[in-house]
Amino acid sequence: MVQFVHPSTEDITLSGVLAALADPVRLKIFMSLMAQEGCMSCTEAAPDNSIPKSTLSHHFRILREAGLIRTIKRGVENRNVPRAEDIDARFPGLLQTLLPLAAHEHRRAG
Amino acid sequence: MVQFVHPSTEDITLSGVLAALADPVRLKIFMSLMAQEGCMSCTEAAPDNSIPKSTLSHHFRILREAGLIRTIKRGVENRNVPRAEDIDARFPGLLQTLLPLAAHEHRRAG
Repeated sequence: MVQFVHPSTEDITLSGVLAALADPVRLKIFMSLMAQEGCMSCTEAAPDNSIPKSTLSHHFRILREAGLIRTIKRGVENRNVPRAEDIDARFPGLLQTLLPLAAHEHRRAG
Repeated sequence: MVQFVHPSTEDITLSGVLAALADPVRLKIFMSLMAQEGCMSCTEAAPDNSIPKSTLSHHFRILREAGLIRTIKRGVENRNVPRAEDIDARFPGLLQTLLPLAAHEHRRAG
């Protein structure tokens, strides 16, 4: 059985968070998870259907190892929840600043 | 003569800025430039003397191409200034949030 690795809150680094969110696909995935109440499977949180499953898994692993999301096995599916409270505890104000800027950037590009 | 490439303010992307600042060495360089009045040479802005010159050049190129700094040739030396106003115009509040968090993280690590 796959064991998912989640850093403890105090081990979350600014570099890890910035690197994880620097990728536009990962940023979109994280924004979808933040916008959603409850949790989402990898497929539900994917920005579009054209992304290969292995690429998606890679993106979710980076988000998980950066401490941005928590992945929970539910039967045959993996469910993902954003660790907003942990990120807020480590880096107060970061998500509140970053996410609106990212949403604005996204609308501008679209 | 070397021509430095600087993106126009509107071409600065959030991904580029986050990726540039996700590297701890580049983040330190940028923080030094922000803390300094006026401008600094690559050597002055380097976090320590152990970083090879080619590695430093690479870091400055990434910062420059992300739109975070402007490099100006002054005689035989390259001087670097942070483009804080341009970043503020593109992403209001980003540097004001990120730099204190980075300074705190730096003190915590040190």
